[in-house]
Amino acid sequence: MEFKSKIKTIEWIKPDNVSRMVDQLVIPYEYKMVDIKTCEQMYDAIKTMIVRGAPAIGIAGAHGLALAALEVSSEVETKEEFLQKLKEKAEYLKSSRPTAVNLMWAVDKQFELVKNSEKTIDEMVQLLIDHAIELENDDIEINKKIGDYGAELVPKKGATILTHCNAGALATVGYGTALGVVRSAFAKDNTIQVFADETRPRQQGSRITTFELVMDNIPVTLITDGMSGYFMNKGMIDMVVVGADRIAANGDTANKIGTYNLAIVANYHKVPFYIAAPLSTIDISIKTGKEIPIEERSHEEVTHINGKRICAEGVKVINPGFDVTPSELIKGIITEKGVLYPPYEDSIKKAFEQV
Amino acid sequence: MEFKSKIKTIEWIKPDNVSRMVDQLVIPYEYKMVDIKTCEQMYDAIKTMIVRGAPAIGIAGAHGLALAALEVSSEVETKEEFLQKLKEKAEYLKSSRPTAVNLMWAVDKQFELVKNSEKTIDEMVQLLIDHAIELENDDIEINKKIGDYGAELVPKKGATILTHCNAGALATVGYGTALGVVRSAFAKDNTIQVFADETRPRQQGSRITTFELVMDNIPVTLITDGMSGYFMNKGMIDMVVVGADRIAANGDTANKIGTYNLAIVANYHKVPFYIAAPLSTIDISIKTGKEIPIEERSHEEVTHINGKRICAEGVKVINPGFDVTPSELIKGIITEKGVLYPPYEDSIKKAFEQV
Repeated sequence: MEFKSKIKTIEWIKPDNVSRMVDQLVIPYEYKMVDIKTCEQMYDAIKTMIVRGAPAIGIAGAHGLALAALEVSSEVETKEEFLQKLKEKAEYLKSSRPTAVNLMWAVDKQFELVKNSEKTIDEMVQLLIDHAIELENDDIEINKKIGDYGAELVPKKGATILTHCNAGALATVGYGTALGVVRSAFAKDNTIQVFADETRPRQQGSRITTFELVMDNIPVTLITDGMSGYFMNKGMIDMVVVGADRIAANGDTANKIGTYNLAIVANYHKVPFYIAAPLSTIDISIKTGKEIPIEERSHEEVTHINGKRICAEGVKVINPGFDVTPSELIKGIITEKGVLYPPYEDSIKKAFEQV
Repeated sequence: MEFKSKIKTIEWIKPDNVSRMVDQLVIPYEYKMVDIKTCEQMYDAIKTMIVRGAPAIGIAGAHGLALAALEVSSEVETKEEFLQKLKEKAEYLKSSRPTAVNLMWAVDKQFELVKNSEKTIDEMVQLLIDHAIELENDDIEINKKIGDYGAELVPKKGATILTHCNAGALATVGYGTALGVVRSAFAKDNTIQVFADETRPRQQGSRITTFELVMDNIPVTLITDGMSGYFMNKGMIDMVVVGADRIAANGDTANKIGTYNLAIVANYHKVPFYIAAPLSTIDISIKTGKEIPIEERSHEEVTHINGKRICAEGVKVINPGFDVTPSELIKGIITEKGVLYPPYEDSIKKAFEQV
């Protein structure tokens, strides 16, 4: 039985040629779509997190370059000029968020498709649109495979799965990575349930994960980030599954800040801790997590909630958006090619050889 | 050199006979005092957390019983009636919050003072008032001793001390337990600094700890509860000190939810993790942390911030106010009788024999 999610996070709309996406800034208060019409609008949508989640911003980047191609094609005379301007737009898009590698992966994949092409400018524009749609469809298929492989790891009937941040349908085109595992598991056993870490500072857990699970009728309990050990100690958590923003060749994984603490706490309790991510999240060009750039975000994310200050004035703040969980704390990495196990240098290499 | 704090959290005011306290519900937006005039008002002040922090609610309980004695004395004819009604008020006050043992300790200490007394009702009322003031003054002296013992444990000049929740001047009559250690350390070396965990759900870290440290000009950096491992991994945290709500005879310590996660993360990084608390927080009547009752608090503390919902409707919530850190994760317990080290069964027993 396949799980049907109600959510489509990002979609290329023909023949209007706009990228239609769920506005994640107004969730959980509203569920509304916005149409992104230019490459600049896409840059802002990624940066302000109208669209977020590593796989979803990959697709947003692919859409963004297709939008750029449409714009640029009407401004240039030659293919060289077209490619030059498109290259600039590609770099610009990639600079919107530094940590998630899917953005770089998708934008580069788009640009490589045309950079040595024999086609006309108009044909190249069409190619970029078609390829963006193809990546979009692939993403859902990949997530379903991740979900199905992950569902096999659920240790018992009626299990409770803890997750951090949102690696759900709303972090991808649909279905989700970590929550893809939940959806596939729920299709097999509708007595499973989810515990969702709030995930301060941006609260993607309380705002987005609870929203999409309630929307898809999967039972979810919201906890604050400091509570996970309390519930693990009581034997109430059977498995932890989270997404990833970038995975190094040795399995070290950058994900939303707080993931590292959760991995340490899960390991202390011998609760299995898994990463769920497509191969496009693995950056084999970097050896270890030490090389992953960590985005430093606005202090206001820590000092304010819903526009209201929650601390004294005069306090200092550091706001790293991500942390790196070392591979020794990760029991397995659930990908569309199956579950990768330590030593990750070998299993990741093999998975890439199969591609 | 002694550190002078600007804060007096709770104080018995003569000759009005009211308990004047800082209203902690409006911090960090306002710093204002409220006068508590009846035992019922005190129950509400403790329950709604106008006054909070284990040592402070101990003193609040002592004040509360003095207020009760004033009320009851005008309603009764006989000493038996007086003691009977006072006993009922004592039980009522103790039921306002279940986890912090200081409340039980202080209320019981007050009642025991008069229960077999030969004095008249009016003399007993005066005795309860005088004793409440004595406990109040003792609390500051005890905290200064805790602070001075703790300051000796700071591992280097310019150290960074991480704390969770608020075990500060505002959790005590003044000076603080964990932040008492900070104040004493800062008096010796004004290059130390504090990292404060936000401490969701009630945000005592962001609301109260940042407020009192800014007020006393001690440098403080606010982080969210999921960030501690990130900074420890970078070598930026030298020591963790937190308060306690109840300590069992074996050293297991109940403290604000999130403390247990922090202790696990600190141990993983070999960052020393200390508890700072007066002996009145140690409940030698219970053997281990398993016996400590954990208060389950309102779900709205998790689902709402500043009155605004932060998650989907339809989400489930569990909101334990405290967790228990097992003694093996605790490097030492800093008390007014010195630092207690494992095995805690022995060191705690010895400390109580000295009293």
